[in-house]
Amino acid sequence: MTAHEPLENLIKTLARLPAIGRRSAERMAMRLVQGRGNLVDDLIAALQDMKASVRCCSKCGSVTTTREDPCRLCTDPRRDDHILCVVENPGDITLIERSGAFRGRYHALMGRISPMEGEGVDNIRVSDLVKRIKAEGVTEVIFALNSDVESDATASFLHDLLVPKGVKVTRIAFGLPAGSGIAYSDPVTLSRAMEGRREL
Amino acid sequence: MTAHEPLENLIKTLARLPAIGRRSAERMAMRLVQGRGNLVDDLIAALQDMKASVRCCSKCGSVTTTREDPCRLCTDPRRDDHILCVVENPGDITLIERSGAFRGRYHALMGRISPMEGEGVDNIRVSDLVKRIKAEGVTEVIFALNSDVESDATASFLHDLLVPKGVKVTRIAFGLPAGSGIAYSDPVTLSRAMEGRREL
Repeated sequence: MTAHEPLENLIKTLARLPAIGRRSAERMAMRLVQGRGNLVDDLIAALQDMKASVRCCSKCGSVTTTREDPCRLCTDPRRDDHILCVVENPGDITLIERSGAFRGRYHALMGRISPMEGEGVDNIRVSDLVKRIKAEGVTEVIFALNSDVESDATASFLHDLLVPKGVKVTRIAFGLPAGSGIAYSDPVTLSRAMEGRREL
Repeated sequence: MTAHEPLENLIKTLARLPAIGRRSAERMAMRLVQGRGNLVDDLIAALQDMKASVRCCSKCGSVTTTREDPCRLCTDPRRDDHILCVVENPGDITLIERSGAFRGRYHALMGRISPMEGEGVDNIRVSDLVKRIKAEGVTEVIFALNSDVESDATASFLHDLLVPKGVKVTRIAFGLPAGSGIAYSDPVTLSRAMEGRREL
């Protein structure tokens, strides 16, 4: 047996992580082989620990514990069932919660439509979203998606799917970030801020 | 118990991998939590498999199996004991072997001196290198290091350490890469190629 096969397998598995290409995976694998500071054992333990205790809520997709599913955000009776905030990733929910600006329910798509990365409609949680809108009597769906071509395509696809179902569809505003100025903005941000202007 | 602690631990462990910052580690951890395609189990298995069967040669540092230590490169009687090629990482040995241009022994430093990344002389295998030069009767040490500030500093440090020990110290050439042309070269490469010119 040569060292080649287990190493190659590790490199290929690491390359399945987001934004990790072949070259990065090779560097990571070589560092793991060198084994300084118990890195391999620590990583195996951290993965096993996470797997045993952390999971995504089966309803909204946010990060929760294996013992709290559906999560606290889904079961909290003080939140508004009629407004649903759609995000790309579970981590986005934490950030929106931190802002304190939303008190409805969440739905994480677990990705977005990105043909370049081989992610189609079947890879995101669209059918669950449609079912929830009907079952939970949702009246407004807010897209809290990112601001790039793939996210715009995802928003456009979901808009066309949901509007015929009689639900109000909105998207969070684009514009100047807080604490920033015109001088530090790029043309696309400025153009979107101009489009989204509101009467004072 | 919240989901926070095991997740935070996983993020911190992933961030110990090379070229992985906090933000990349968070993205990787979130992908692992989402758990599509058995990624966590596959990664744990790949790590355990690698740990069980792959290791770095205790002598030269190249990648070998747990059953072949010292490695084949160290035990092959047809190789020249008097020339030692010093590389930064075990992966570099594989690349030089593939070129077929070297038939001596190897020594991987397992890094390089990089104060910015907190890597000092104690983090690389310098004392082993000094011991080997004496014990194995090495007459020439070739630095096959990379071409940037940290590698230059490492070469300079090792040069000053080894020359007083009466060993010849050389460094592989810098210049135009094979198949390339002047038009595609940057000024530093051209300047180094000019410095390293040889009589025909």
